[in-house]
Amino acid sequence: MKGWLFTKTGVAPKLIEKEDPKPAKDEVVLDVKAAGLCHSDVGALEEESWMEIITAAPLIFGHEAAGVVSELGEGVTDFEIGDRVGVAPINPVTKETIGYQRDGGYATKLVVPANQLIRIPDGVSFVEGAAATDAGMTSHRALFGVGQAKKGDKVGIVGIGGLGQFALQMALATGCEVYAADIAEHARDFAEKSGAHGVAKDIAEFADKELDVIVDFAGFKESFKSCLKASAFHGTVVLAGMGNTTLDLNVNDVILKELTIKGSNGGNADDIASVYEFFKKGSLKPQITTIPFEDIGKGLEKLKNGEVSGRLVAEINPD
Amino acid sequence: MKGWLFTKTGVAPKLIEKEDPKPAKDEVVLDVKAAGLCHSDVGALEEESWMEIITAAPLIFGHEAAGVVSELGEGVTDFEIGDRVGVAPINPVTKETIGYQRDGGYATKLVVPANQLIRIPDGVSFVEGAAATDAGMTSHRALFGVGQAKKGDKVGIVGIGGLGQFALQMALATGCEVYAADIAEHARDFAEKSGAHGVAKDIAEFADKELDVIVDFAGFKESFKSCLKASAFHGTVVLAGMGNTTLDLNVNDVILKELTIKGSNGGNADDIASVYEFFKKGSLKPQITTIPFEDIGKGLEKLKNGEVSGRLVAEINPD
Repeated sequence: MKGWLFTKTGVAPKLIEKEDPKPAKDEVVLDVKAAGLCHSDVGALEEESWMEIITAAPLIFGHEAAGVVSELGEGVTDFEIGDRVGVAPINPVTKETIGYQRDGGYATKLVVPANQLIRIPDGVSFVEGAAATDAGMTSHRALFGVGQAKKGDKVGIVGIGGLGQFALQMALATGCEVYAADIAEHARDFAEKSGAHGVAKDIAEFADKELDVIVDFAGFKESFKSCLKASAFHGTVVLAGMGNTTLDLNVNDVILKELTIKGSNGGNADDIASVYEFFKKGSLKPQITTIPFEDIGKGLEKLKNGEVSGRLVAEINPD
Repeated sequence: MKGWLFTKTGVAPKLIEKEDPKPAKDEVVLDVKAAGLCHSDVGALEEESWMEIITAAPLIFGHEAAGVVSELGEGVTDFEIGDRVGVAPINPVTKETIGYQRDGGYATKLVVPANQLIRIPDGVSFVEGAAATDAGMTSHRALFGVGQAKKGDKVGIVGIGGLGQFALQMALATGCEVYAADIAEHARDFAEKSGAHGVAKDIAEFADKELDVIVDFAGFKESFKSCLKASAFHGTVVLAGMGNTTLDLNVNDVILKELTIKGSNGGNADDIASVYEFFKKGSLKPQITTIPFEDIGKGLEKLKNGEVSGRLVAEINPD
């Protein structure tokens, strides 16, 4: 098998060859078909503190994968060879994340515990299947799991990038009245084409709409301040982005409007399965750029330089 | 009747005589027996911005009152002359607050709509009845209504002053495991004597307890930062104090622990009725200092100078 090896912060990942993995008990081997490139991986290459998280380095990088089951370990009964699956990044029992604490998805083959697999429905591609495992999952949890958005709610989505575009389209498909904000023009264009009820640079422009739920995928001082302004009396602001490490909390906004502010982090297999359903119904058309497996190194460079709009996914041995 | 007239910010309230009030339809007149002195009133005397709220000035000041029903307006059927009652500061329908938008409780007589009255149970004094209407009510809503604290929860109370002392004792009476923090030694002594499971200057000292619900009655940058640190994974921090106008939100705490932060503002007649029940059961022994009606002016000065510990209540024509 081939894979992109992460050694440590500051060192570019390297494409290597290594022996094919064998599945242990309750594990499967996948022939990886698509692997999403994530801003977190750029972070790991730039910020030393990530080495506390990536405890299995050197290891194969990447935590967004989809593929075909090609080998079953002892005790695996829920899946068969040939099944099309996506992989939940974090194991629900061991809490290990692929690409951080064990080999990941920037590879031709991946061995994972079967309890991390989610079946990809017919009509949903591997590329979509991979994009759903982190960007889709995280958006879904922030908007529905933590934010409790439901049909008829007035929803604000701040930051229409890799994550926010999922939330935007899922909120619209759920029957929410959706207001989107992004400082980038191409992101606002995407939001308008997706059918957002209002689009602006700053979500505070929709303060008169009194938004019930706002998800801040940016997490910058400016964006968060505007979220509090745009929130309705008794509204909820979900913080999902980590643009700044400290944000300003306006006490008058929080107390006089009795706001709720909630942090949202990651998600689980159920979130991914729900995102697959949105794809299946045709509700999700996120902006995804695909690259060949061999270009993952260059792709991470492009992500770092802000040269990618939407989500970047590598295709591996496409049919 | 006599009453303390508030004219405007910067001018000390003056004891005046005026004609006895007559009840309009659905109103009653009370012979006021006790009136609580509130830090908000000190604020109004110091900060010009309060004049936007105190729209009926010049008016009789004070928004924490208890007394005896002495006259019934047309249509009042739920109360009788002689009933012992407390007054919810804000009218549930008109949203008018006594002492701000109509005459208040620093008076020998008070006319209020009957839908603001709460019966004081036997065994609960007028002084307790008055203290419960703002300090008690606000604490009750923050801890139970907004914070959803329940038996068995690990609860943090930050700021054991006029409000926090109510929350502390109500949490203990509810069967919570209670940790208290205050920078003042006398407040910590009070918390210890009340039976708190842990008492410290800084709630962050109890971070290892992983607190389920923390109410910040201080609302200073330092206290709020510590609340986030001491909060459990998926914990709730209720912001009730307005010590600083802007607080720092540590994004790592909020997102990685998926915290909930909620603002709490005031309360209603149901909160006051619940506080009366705590008094009736003997669960509440807040620190209350009483002064005669004639000393309300001096009392506000003492509050301003930080010379009062616990809650200050004026007694009016005591039996």
